[in-house]
Amino acid sequence: MRYIAKSLVLATTALGIAVAPGTGSAGAAQTGTQSLYAPSALVLTVTAGDDALNGSVLRAVTLTCTPRAGGTHPAAGTACAELRAGGARFESVVAADSGVMCTKQWDPVTVTADGVWDGRRIAFTHTFANSCFKEGADGVVFAF
Amino acid sequence: MRYIAKSLVLATTALGIAVAPGTGSAGAAQTGTQSLYAPSALVLTVTAGDDALNGSVLRAVTLTCTPRAGGTHPAAGTACAELRAGGARFESVVAADSGVMCTKQWDPVTVTADGVWDGRRIAFTHTFANSCFKEGADGVVFAF
Repeated sequence: MRYIAKSLVLATTALGIAVAPGTGSAGAAQTGTQSLYAPSALVLTVTAGDDALNGSVLRAVTLTCTPRAGGTHPAAGTACAELRAGGARFESVVAADSGVMCTKQWDPVTVTADGVWDGRRIAFTHTFANSCFKEGADGVVFAF
Repeated sequence: MRYIAKSLVLATTALGIAVAPGTGSAGAAQTGTQSLYAPSALVLTVTAGDDALNGSVLRAVTLTCTPRAGGTHPAAGTACAELRAGGARFESVVAADSGVMCTKQWDPVTVTADGVWDGRRIAFTHTFANSCFKEGADGVVFAF
């Protein structure tokens, strides 16, 4: 009797999962993003000041790199290539280009990257002393 | 003499800022995302388990809603309409649809939303007890 009851619970559980996609209000859309690739989707932002959480967000773009480069980033292809080359080490794309000279006044600009890269969660923040350093960074990932 | 030196510093500063876009490796791309709208760009994810930070990210999509609905979200238009209607209160789009019945086994699925909505930073996390509850949520924002 205990065995039968247990089977019944398991059957109900299985049924619950099996019918779920049909009962959801948007079940049909669910298959649209199934992919062979580990998910990669990023939001990149530029914020005035040195406080990414509370500062005023000036610009924000999306970037996806698999299966192909896309999103609202103005140079998605190049940005994806840079991230792929460096294994998504954002530190390298904000490093200063050796050929760029900037004054050192403190008028900070903060860039962030949030989301997922190859299934790995990303939460990156970097503050440039001023916008000249940002524009002079050795990469196009944050050039928007 | 001091006056001249100060002017020189100011001139150099102005020059430094003025030439910066040209010296950056992707200065030309910079104007691409200037917009009349406050920035809105989101990454939505579905993660197995109840730990959004360290769990395995199953799926991730991007969603932008201004000037028009876009991104890799399979139902971007409807998702944007839902978020706009609720003022991007993500709590309302994960609320249970009253018509859906689910078993209560603990097989958690966590959804996250990160990025920017109307210039305001978003960091939302919600754990469903199991995928049936996720599919039965009253909204399509996390239906991918």
